[in-house]
Amino acid sequence: MTTKTKEVPLNFDGRARRFSAELRPAYGLEKWLLRRLLTTMRDPPLTIRLWSGEQIHGSSRPAEVTLHIKEPHALWGILANPDLYFGDAYSDGTIEVDGDLLHMIELATLHRPQLVGESGPLGLSIRLFAPTPRGNNLKASRHNIHHHYDLGNDFYRLWLDHPYMQYTCAYFPDPSMTLEQAQVAKMEHVCRKLQLKPGDTVVEAGCGWGGLAHYMAEHHGVTVRAYNISQEQVSFAIDKAKQSGLQGKVEYIEDDYRNITGEYDVFVSVGMLEHVGKRNYGALGGVIDRCLKSNGRALIHSIGRNAPRLMNRWIEKRIFPGAYPPALSEMMSIFEPYDFSILDIENLRLHYAKTLEHWLQRFEEHRTDVSEEFDERFVRAWRLYLTGSIAAFKLGDLQLFQVVFSRGGDNELPWSREYIYGAE
Amino acid sequence: MTTKTKEVPLNFDGRARRFSAELRPAYGLEKWLLRRLLTTMRDPPLTIRLWSGEQIHGSSRPAEVTLHIKEPHALWGILANPDLYFGDAYSDGTIEVDGDLLHMIELATLHRPQLVGESGPLGLSIRLFAPTPRGNNLKASRHNIHHHYDLGNDFYRLWLDHPYMQYTCAYFPDPSMTLEQAQVAKMEHVCRKLQLKPGDTVVEAGCGWGGLAHYMAEHHGVTVRAYNISQEQVSFAIDKAKQSGLQGKVEYIEDDYRNITGEYDVFVSVGMLEHVGKRNYGALGGVIDRCLKSNGRALIHSIGRNAPRLMNRWIEKRIFPGAYPPALSEMMSIFEPYDFSILDIENLRLHYAKTLEHWLQRFEEHRTDVSEEFDERFVRAWRLYLTGSIAAFKLGDLQLFQVVFSRGGDNELPWSREYIYGAE
Repeated sequence: MTTKTKEVPLNFDGRARRFSAELRPAYGLEKWLLRRLLTTMRDPPLTIRLWSGEQIHGSSRPAEVTLHIKEPHALWGILANPDLYFGDAYSDGTIEVDGDLLHMIELATLHRPQLVGESGPLGLSIRLFAPTPRGNNLKASRHNIHHHYDLGNDFYRLWLDHPYMQYTCAYFPDPSMTLEQAQVAKMEHVCRKLQLKPGDTVVEAGCGWGGLAHYMAEHHGVTVRAYNISQEQVSFAIDKAKQSGLQGKVEYIEDDYRNITGEYDVFVSVGMLEHVGKRNYGALGGVIDRCLKSNGRALIHSIGRNAPRLMNRWIEKRIFPGAYPPALSEMMSIFEPYDFSILDIENLRLHYAKTLEHWLQRFEEHRTDVSEEFDERFVRAWRLYLTGSIAAFKLGDLQLFQVVFSRGGDNELPWSREYIYGAE
Repeated sequence: MTTKTKEVPLNFDGRARRFSAELRPAYGLEKWLLRRLLTTMRDPPLTIRLWSGEQIHGSSRPAEVTLHIKEPHALWGILANPDLYFGDAYSDGTIEVDGDLLHMIELATLHRPQLVGESGPLGLSIRLFAPTPRGNNLKASRHNIHHHYDLGNDFYRLWLDHPYMQYTCAYFPDPSMTLEQAQVAKMEHVCRKLQLKPGDTVVEAGCGWGGLAHYMAEHHGVTVRAYNISQEQVSFAIDKAKQSGLQGKVEYIEDDYRNITGEYDVFVSVGMLEHVGKRNYGALGGVIDRCLKSNGRALIHSIGRNAPRLMNRWIEKRIFPGAYPPALSEMMSIFEPYDFSILDIENLRLHYAKTLEHWLQRFEEHRTDVSEEFDERFVRAWRLYLTGSIAAFKLGDLQLFQVVFSRGGDNELPWSREYIYGAE
């Protein structure tokens, strides 16, 4: 890998860059800035090895991991904007982590400089220049979703659960469950929270590969209409439903949630809100208000934050364009204008960390298959994204909220949540 | 009662008013305005009977309840500011409800004019003139709390549960439970959510008559320090703890939550947030941040709203000065500045309606005892407050949120909520 990156030009979003074979020595200024960075980070137990072979130790304690910066350009990028350039440099191989990548990210997160916000130690406040997340109007949404979800069903099949292909947080009431068990448990948890009963009509906003809609129709006797703007996912879902003889029970529609029509007993959306964008929360609330019957039950499952904060810039730029995980205060602007009543919020943060651990393990197990489709830069970017997400959920940077709600005047509510936890 | 109010001056917050024995006829304008009001309310099935004996029907359907307006002054007050003056006029007996009071309030709520907001049909927007709820600085809080909670332990003992005197929403996993059972179930529900274990230290902000603190120490082997600024309640609580030999386990402190000191495994506050006031949410968050250990668990139980809205003015003015039930978006300003992580929110709205039904029933059963202490105006005001609150919770105007939270980085979280619902 190291040799390869030095020999061939790497294309990364259109930028081409050739590494010079002859690397200059590290300047005193560069080493001084790195030392300053490590001091600002309150002396993390990590070592930085430079392209020149010189090492800078973050702490007098033994280093737990080594960050290898292989060329000056990567160093300056990281100093200026660590959130964005660490990811890029790791992807293109100009930095390498010797040791556990997850541990490296955890250290970097726990030792994140407190005062400089999302800026680097050079003191430039990135916030000032930071673009807001990309827009999510009808056209932009289609583009953004295509970027991520149309990488190919074969790719996702390598490391998601079978057969439901749930690319959202699983539910591990018992942490030793397999990924397959935990994804079924998640779907069942959602169905129970929604109190599905045979004959109910369900609308799903953002249905991925259709697994949840499929499961609901198959196991709860409901009729589901599921919306998604990812063409590849919708084709996949339709084929699956045909194979299972569920054509009359599940309908997959390649369209935006804003175009949902009809009235339903149940509204459900698992893992779409992250892509909706804050500005459209009112529109989403309006859609739910339009399509939910007076005694309807509804659930939104979404990544969130403990407080409003910008998405990690690298993830937003390279992995999930337009994505924004909201704080609960922000999420409320879906519900409050329409007098929806929040009945139940559950935070499944650690379940997402565990889900991602399973995904990463399977991804690494299928690395050879992935490499047949994608270049090394992609493999490294994806590894970083999965690993970084584990760290974010483990360290509490990201949350996973399941929000159950109904119309404000609906009194057909269960007297306790035992309906979720009781025997089937 | 009717005769009495016409004979004696009624003191109501310092205002004295004598009813004229000779009532004039109703003007055409008054009847026209009432008809306009009923039209704006989309023809509710209620009849208004005037002091002159004339009746105005809200609908061609048979009236389900009759509102008897006994003097012109009451009519004009209600037209100008129904939220405030309905309560006052009902309390001083210048209006009477012939039929079920709860049903009357439900009709008025369901038929509330949509366009005039909190103003009367005269079209004056009360919002423009509405004072914000009274302040809740240290001194004002003491005054506000004294107003309501120091009415006398004997009074509350007449209609609250025994022995825990819980003046907050009970929990009825089985709606046929007695009030006593449901209040114990509420305390147990809170203890389970907080995962109390023997030896834990607990701080309680706003402890009422000390029932929850008492219960926790008695049944969960924890040590509790409980704060309250109501002198009568604290004395009562201290006596009870002595009687139960819990002196070393529960400490009641007559002081403001802002003066909490120490560090604890658990923070709990049941039914205090309503009195804190939006402006002080940051201060409350700061107190919790100061006193909660790194792996501490915390719970706030509070009346809330589906969206930010002013408190009913009569309740705020006559019953609960300074009170404000927040929407979840507002409540989040307690948590978000301190990176607290919301783990679990449960809405127990219908449980509060049921709790209030029990309270009202006991209150009416003890009406004679109440009348020995308080005048008829108080009895009627209290009846209206309890009945109006039942309606508000039943119709979804008010919510009851239990919010469980921890520090953002705490990973000692149970894998599911079965710890709340499993066998003991």
